[in-house]
Amino acid sequence: MSTQGASPHRASGSADPEDLSRLVATGRPADVAELLFALEPAEAAHAIMRVPREFAARVLEQPEFEGRAALIEHLPSDVAVGLITAMSPDARADLIRDLSDRVRARVLPRLDVSTRRSLETLLSYPPASAGGIMTTDYISVPPGSTVEETLQEIRRSGRRRPVYAVYVVEPATGVLLHVVSLRELVLADPRTAMTQVGEPRSLLTVGLETDREDVARLISKYNLLAVPVVDEERRLRGAITVDDVIDAILREQTEDVHKLGGLEALDEPYPRTRFATMVRKRAGWLCALFLSEMLTTSAMQHFEAELSKALVLILFIPLIMSSGGNSGSQATSLIIRALALRQLPLRDWWRVALRELPAGVALGSILGVIGVSRIMVWQALGLYDYGPHWFLVAATVGLALVGVVTFGSLSGAMLPFVLQGLRFDPASASAPFVATLVDVTGLSIYFTVAYLVLRGTLL
Amino acid sequence: MSTQGASPHRASGSADPEDLSRLVATGRPADVAELLFALEPAEAAHAIMRVPREFAARVLEQPEFEGRAALIEHLPSDVAVGLITAMSPDARADLIRDLSDRVRARVLPRLDVSTRRSLETLLSYPPASAGGIMTTDYISVPPGSTVEETLQEIRRSGRRRPVYAVYVVEPATGVLLHVVSLRELVLADPRTAMTQVGEPRSLLTVGLETDREDVARLISKYNLLAVPVVDEERRLRGAITVDDVIDAILREQTEDVHKLGGLEALDEPYPRTRFATMVRKRAGWLCALFLSEMLTTSAMQHFEAELSKALVLILFIPLIMSSGGNSGSQATSLIIRALALRQLPLRDWWRVALRELPAGVALGSILGVIGVSRIMVWQALGLYDYGPHWFLVAATVGLALVGVVTFGSLSGAMLPFVLQGLRFDPASASAPFVATLVDVTGLSIYFTVAYLVLRGTLL
Repeated sequence: MSTQGASPHRASGSADPEDLSRLVATGRPADVAELLFALEPAEAAHAIMRVPREFAARVLEQPEFEGRAALIEHLPSDVAVGLITAMSPDARADLIRDLSDRVRARVLPRLDVSTRRSLETLLSYPPASAGGIMTTDYISVPPGSTVEETLQEIRRSGRRRPVYAVYVVEPATGVLLHVVSLRELVLADPRTAMTQVGEPRSLLTVGLETDREDVARLISKYNLLAVPVVDEERRLRGAITVDDVIDAILREQTEDVHKLGGLEALDEPYPRTRFATMVRKRAGWLCALFLSEMLTTSAMQHFEAELSKALVLILFIPLIMSSGGNSGSQATSLIIRALALRQLPLRDWWRVALRELPAGVALGSILGVIGVSRIMVWQALGLYDYGPHWFLVAATVGLALVGVVTFGSLSGAMLPFVLQGLRFDPASASAPFVATLVDVTGLSIYFTVAYLVLRGTLL
Repeated sequence: MSTQGASPHRASGSADPEDLSRLVATGRPADVAELLFALEPAEAAHAIMRVPREFAARVLEQPEFEGRAALIEHLPSDVAVGLITAMSPDARADLIRDLSDRVRARVLPRLDVSTRRSLETLLSYPPASAGGIMTTDYISVPPGSTVEETLQEIRRSGRRRPVYAVYVVEPATGVLLHVVSLRELVLADPRTAMTQVGEPRSLLTVGLETDREDVARLISKYNLLAVPVVDEERRLRGAITVDDVIDAILREQTEDVHKLGGLEALDEPYPRTRFATMVRKRAGWLCALFLSEMLTTSAMQHFEAELSKALVLILFIPLIMSSGGNSGSQATSLIIRALALRQLPLRDWWRVALRELPAGVALGSILGVIGVSRIMVWQALGLYDYGPHWFLVAATVGLALVGVVTFGSLSGAMLPFVLQGLRFDPASASAPFVATLVDVTGLSIYFTVAYLVLRGTLL
């Protein structure tokens, strides 16, 4: 049943029972998850049955434990149902998303009604939205409560919940009235009414559909430990805690690096990803880029007559094309990051264009000077003969570099804006994407400059 | 004095005093920081003097407020000293690092002795180490304390401190004995001894020299809100809180994206970076890549005789070179991320090589089939005449694509390992870097294949 058979990292053999009980004794589920992840799913399933149930549920809650769905598939149904029930609602929803249809059909009907209902609610939100990463396991108190009563409530029901904040909720409507952080609660006089605790300020909340990246930005900007999720009627629906946000940031970061490299983001770590999946995720973009890059062949065919007359021009094609791609990829990575961190509003594209234009000219001129010097030095030292019109060839190369680098910087900077405007992820503007875009245009710029400079001499 | 004169985002004019007092009233320093950041430093300095001192110190603590050093330079010395004294130790050290030598010399001697001493300690650690991002402002209690006494201590001294955990410290030696999270403290019976609170487990600590990325991984793995920093004798030296870790992750992420794009990481947001700084940070890598890429010109000069005999080969040079670069950049981004997340140990480079070899052959074959089909279709439909040996030309292009893509995948995957092995940041293996590496070799592969296939016919 394993979908991860040929991964290079799977340790063969079974878990050492002593290792396992030692790790359980240290009380850190993340360490046990790491140990189990190194085993075959069947072995891991066997091992987790030796771990006390509450602790085993904590192990399955570790988001880094990518093999947990495969493990569940190897458990007897009653054990699986028991573990899943003991998990926190958000981790449970995450796990159920990864199960195969067959196992999901076996497990879901056996969950108790309230667990199933909360699960169905969580699964109805997109996985990258606030609703998709929130937990429904939070502590709320009615507006009449005092700090002392709230502390008692936490001692009664907080043992199995993340307690970063307490939410004051109107019992009749479920509307969120006030948020008190655990720190504010501890600092407050026990007799104070909960609605009076903390500095008076507007509530920071997110909606069910808010993107997890925006949740992360909010938590990071205001240094929060948790943020409440409310619906349109401002009713409290869940809470997102800072540890989930860190996981979301790291996941988002991996996706971005993969996209920047010009491939579909892998869902699993590289060593775990099946060979066929990996090739498929890379082949898509590679073929798309290849088909676009074929335009360079068409462009060359178009300029064939010029090329055959001035073979010397061919020598600089890779140099000029790659310079355009490199400058474009620099500009793209700058703008992608500035957009992601909301340092640049979308409407400011023209300010960026006005900045990249002189930057491109400056960078192109630097490369142009180096290129021209190279030709002059080689010619002077007799290392290569660029022909009687070598000076015009050098001028062509220099001017083409200015044009290509300027065009590369400008289009590399504009591409993320265009993608964001079209509601695509700007991080899809990968270096290969930009390079391909610039390659075709770069060739045309080069040949046009050559035509203008060399007309009447070489061409 | 401003070092940010020509940035496109600076709003001209002064802050609306009403906006400012409204934002101060809502009690969120991050919002005030945002408002001040949009002003000229002199204006921002003028505005912050209208904000109550404690609140103004919170505003200056926002790590997103990149203009705070420039603001300080415009304040009268006594105001600057007052604000800096009121800041938290870690944010204070961060700010002092960014001040100009002149202002630092003006401010430092006027700080009180204890503030200056803690500052000097923090400044002695590298900014990307645990010592460099920790705060010395934590709550510690002697081992004999009870929960009740600790709660009283927090109510007395916790108002101006981050209270995520309480550290039980041996008073005579300063050695860290136990850590109790705020949640465990609240859940515990008030009469319990502090050393008995929480589950018994080994302490999670980091050293003063630990890299901030490793701190972030630890906090994320074990879902911590804070981690204590200890020296070699296990004496408590400071604490790192989750909000500082998020800031560190985001900063690291920006650096990585910039490096992947092939430029030196900018220290300030793109819109804030001076034009000359930006051009300089881009020109370095661009020139280095350009000089390397000149080898393609040398390679072409070397194969000049072949090229002049078989002009048709030139048409496919950009296509073949870019395919190698693209497949290399895909492999690089996969490995960079897997190394950063510690999913791959350095010693596993050969497993990766054994995996990228067949992946490269598979991807190269897919592109090869497309390339060959393109030539056959164009030839059959009479769109272009590739000459009497068109079938051999197609075979050359197809085989060269397999070779170049395989070489690209393999070298793209190995480059981050090489860089990590040489103790460079693997993220320096940018897409442009890989593309340049692969371009030169790709040309040689192409011409070698052409020589083998076309010998006796075209060549």
